[in-house]
Amino acid sequence: MLLQQLQHTFKQVDQSRVFQSFVIAVIVISALTVGAHTYSLNPAIEFILEWLDKGITFFFLVELIIRYIATNNFKHFFKQGWNIFDTIIVLGSLYPAAGSTIFIARLLRIFRVLRLVSMIPELRLLVNALIKAIPQMGYIALLMFVIFYIYAAVGSMLFANINPELWQDVSISMLTLFRVATFEDWTDIMYETMKVYKLSWIYYLTFIFLTAFIFLNMMVGTILEVMSQEHSNMKAQTEPPKPEPATQQQVEQLQKQLTDIQQSLAQLSYAKKNKADELS
Amino acid sequence: MLLQQLQHTFKQVDQSRVFQSFVIAVIVISALTVGAHTYSLNPAIEFILEWLDKGITFFFLVELIIRYIATNNFKHFFKQGWNIFDTIIVLGSLYPAAGSTIFIARLLRIFRVLRLVSMIPELRLLVNALIKAIPQMGYIALLMFVIFYIYAAVGSMLFANINPELWQDVSISMLTLFRVATFEDWTDIMYETMKVYKLSWIYYLTFIFLTAFIFLNMMVGTILEVMSQEHSNMKAQTEPPKPEPATQQQVEQLQKQLTDIQQSLAQLSYAKKNKADELS
Amino acid sequence: MLLQQLQHTFKQVDQSRVFQSFVIAVIVISALTVGAHTYSLNPAIEFILEWLDKGITFFFLVELIIRYIATNNFKHFFKQGWNIFDTIIVLGSLYPAAGSTIFIARLLRIFRVLRLVSMIPELRLLVNALIKAIPQMGYIALLMFVIFYIYAAVGSMLFANINPELWQDVSISMLTLFRVATFEDWTDIMYETMKVYKLSWIYYLTFIFLTAFIFLNMMVGTILEVMSQEHSNMKAQTEPPKPEPATQQQVEQLQKQLTDIQQSLAQLSYAKKNKADELS
Amino acid sequence: MLLQQLQHTFKQVDQSRVFQSFVIAVIVISALTVGAHTYSLNPAIEFILEWLDKGITFFFLVELIIRYIATNNFKHFFKQGWNIFDTIIVLGSLYPAAGSTIFIARLLRIFRVLRLVSMIPELRLLVNALIKAIPQMGYIALLMFVIFYIYAAVGSMLFANINPELWQDVSISMLTLFRVATFEDWTDIMYETMKVYKLSWIYYLTFIFLTAFIFLNMMVGTILEVMSQEHSNMKAQTEPPKPEPATQQQVEQLQKQLTDIQQSLAQLSYAKKNKADELS
Repeated sequence: MLLQQLQHTFKQVDQSRVFQSFVIAVIVISALTVGAHTYSLNPAIEFILEWLDKGITFFFLVELIIRYIATNNFKHFFKQGWNIFDTIIVLGSLYPAAGSTIFIARLLRIFRVLRLVSMIPELRLLVNALIKAIPQMGYIALLMFVIFYIYAAVGSMLFANINPELWQDVSISMLTLFRVATFEDWTDIMYETMKVYKLSWIYYLTFIFLTAFIFLNMMVGTILEVMSQEHSNMKAQTEPPKPEPATQQQVEQLQKQLTDIQQSLAQLSYAKKNKADELS
Repeated sequence: MLLQQLQHTFKQVDQSRVFQSFVIAVIVISALTVGAHTYSLNPAIEFILEWLDKGITFFFLVELIIRYIATNNFKHFFKQGWNIFDTIIVLGSLYPAAGSTIFIARLLRIFRVLRLVSMIPELRLLVNALIKAIPQMGYIALLMFVIFYIYAAVGSMLFANINPELWQDVSISMLTLFRVATFEDWTDIMYETMKVYKLSWIYYLTFIFLTAFIFLNMMVGTILEVMSQEHSNMKAQTEPPKPEPATQQQVEQLQKQLTDIQQSLAQLSYAKKNKADELS
Repeated sequence: MLLQQLQHTFKQVDQSRVFQSFVIAVIVISALTVGAHTYSLNPAIEFILEWLDKGITFFFLVELIIRYIATNNFKHFFKQGWNIFDTIIVLGSLYPAAGSTIFIARLLRIFRVLRLVSMIPELRLLVNALIKAIPQMGYIALLMFVIFYIYAAVGSMLFANINPELWQDVSISMLTLFRVATFEDWTDIMYETMKVYKLSWIYYLTFIFLTAFIFLNMMVGTILEVMSQEHSNMKAQTEPPKPEPATQQQVEQLQKQLTDIQQSLAQLSYAKKNKADELS
Repeated sequence: MLLQQLQHTFKQVDQSRVFQSFVIAVIVISALTVGAHTYSLNPAIEFILEWLDKGITFFFLVELIIRYIATNNFKHFFKQGWNIFDTIIVLGSLYPAAGSTIFIARLLRIFRVLRLVSMIPELRLLVNALIKAIPQMGYIALLMFVIFYIYAAVGSMLFANINPELWQDVSISMLTLFRVATFEDWTDIMYETMKVYKLSWIYYLTFIFLTAFIFLNMMVGTILEVMSQEHSNMKAQTEPPKPEPATQQQVEQLQKQLTDIQQSLAQLSYAKKNKADELS
């Protein structure tokens, strides 16, 4: 009984706008304290921040416990990705922010900012949409990787002696090619190799065209995919299931019936006429 | 009476093409004088510009007063954003262009160029459309900000000692990350940190992929949003409300009626046949 | 008679695939000779190129004369933009390629490559489509110009003393801003001004967001504009004017008629029944 | 008989998931060995890699022979582009990886990674789609080339003396212009020429606008092309051939028939009434 009453109260608290706004406010403050640590501060403020951090950690823990108690079904609770996400972040930030591992502790505290995403429904929707878009980009990413790998292997074979810093091995070459793909000082790299291999511009231009071309198609693909989904959703939502329009077949059946009637009438009037002739 | 007559005359003046073209011409001249000030000029031209500026300021004030008198309803007048916009710009340019604050006065005069936007209907439409697109980009901007903030906090923690100029604190780190997002010499920044942390390329590549990915989705989102609006507008405009097509239900009712008639006719001819049998 | 026969022959020549392919070949050769001039050549080849150039000029003139004779209607001929385009290019390349003005002569000869566009129908279509897209981009370009102008005026006022080479006056500032808009070493420019005005990053970031935002909308706008055109074209082409589907109103009229028939039949059988009663 | 049995067995092997996964695994290992060669390795590993490479080459040869035997129709087999693709890659990697031509041998072995594309159906689909998109981009590429060529010829004529490394001849100028099109340190190039020709910024800005404008249109064009295809495909797939709705013409015919019936009935009742009058 007591538990149920508590559960009911906590559910109300959890879903009240005031409480949710307060949680968001605490997340923002938490983000600011994380940011504040990157400035050089005087000890007094450091001390305040430390206690503020402890308070925030405690508050998040309490908020999570409230949500645990508020839920009726634990299995269902942990089936929602966002709840697991929140639990991990809150547990992670329990790591003590002291001693030699203060660095890791601070890193974990930074991720508390991500709770903003799980708290604001619009951001949650947005991230869900982004996650849904990942699989359809997977194979294009694989194709892109194959192209990068082949060019990196060739580049490493050809240019390793020209500039080992850029072409030493496959992994470094791939990083260099990513740099070329972002147009970042790519001509410096090209001019350097062109001094040895005069035709190496072919290597760079084909690479740029291939990656740009595939990226373009990826973009078009994504737009189309999302568009067709949107289109079908829109159709499903806005247009109520219309009554089916009458088909031509139906009307032809009507016509048959009418012809039948006409014939009956004709017979009728013919019989009458005959009878009238008989009578007269 | 006199006021009404004046109002009527001023309305005609305000809406005449000649007057509007003249206002646009004055705005363009005003823009040119603003531009001219940035060149080093000989005193004679400076003097002319000064008087020209006074003339333009006076003209804009008169034009605004004409529009005030021309309007019937002051409340309605100030409900339109563009009227408030014009009033602020004109009042702002009344600030005296002399003394130690000449800098601010000139700054305020520059914004008179924006009156071009409020004078030309096509530009006004365009800016209205851009303003409408802001809210739908708001949450994506917030998500982007969260990502920038987290990466900036991590970057500031890790790289502050490597290059304080780029990673000193969260705000400077965010500026550096914006630079990375625009691919501006981002590899220089990366190579610098890779000398200390060999794996820091992961930091940059994940950041670039995330921001590019979200930007891509923002673009797709905007295109779709505008498209669906356009689509529904187009549908509403081009297609007149068509008469509803006949439904299958209706035809089935017709069929019932016809069957009914057929039965009546059958009965009729049966009755006749019976009677004929009786008579014979 | 002779003229008409000539006209007929020339028309056939002008429209034959062989002749058109030959013209394209000559254009390509002409393009190659233009390109060849940029290399340092030995006198023998220079001499050949000179005569080749004369031959090409003569050929183009003859080809144009053939097309003039082939046409029936001169007014109609010059109403087509591409014919005027060809005439100007051919006449331009008659400028003698010798003496002190050889530079201008060569410049005019370069434009002969553009005849490729007027010869190949697919390229002509493409360029026509591009030209059609210009007006809808005009007002966005104007809006962009206003933004560039205001930022350039402000930038010139604020930063002229920091780096006169970049911010000396409005026109140079606009070029610098265009550089910022293409992300070309824009951070170098920003860091330079940030040393004097710490908050000048606001200037650059707002500028980048504004221009990127408007460019994005321009792109979306263009896509939508072209799409809706394509859409309506496609609809007009692929879907033949379907027979109008039967409307509900029509069926209701049918129902009325049927009800009428039912009543008539009812009356008929009632009358018969009465008569039968009478007779019995 | 034996051959047919062998063929049947090999077909089953070729199409089994286990075998295909194994082939993919071998391709990945082959890719890794190619990558491993770019690192400096100790002799023992070099020795292992050499034998691994021989094993992979042998395996690919066996796999290809299995597929040859498994096929019934050799002509049909070689009509599929992917089979030719595989044969070339496998035959190419038979080139002995030793002696002075080890470089070429390794280059040929790198392309074995591309077999990943021919093995994974999703990648094959993707590449097919990309290949289909090539023709529609062909004419835009030609137009782009014409613009690059003209600007390169003009640039080479004007700027060859300013910086021969960038503008020496047409081909080098085209490479420089491609650099400008990717915004790679383009302002450095511009500032250099602006010192001699003050107005040369016009050259660069018109070039950037033209290429950006055409690229934008290319993108829009591609999106639209793919979209309309997608659209028609979607329509064909999702919507079954609906029964044609009843047309207004059909209903009008019904109406005629009904009017006919009404008239017959009217005549009938009239005749009856007359007879009744006669009888009375």
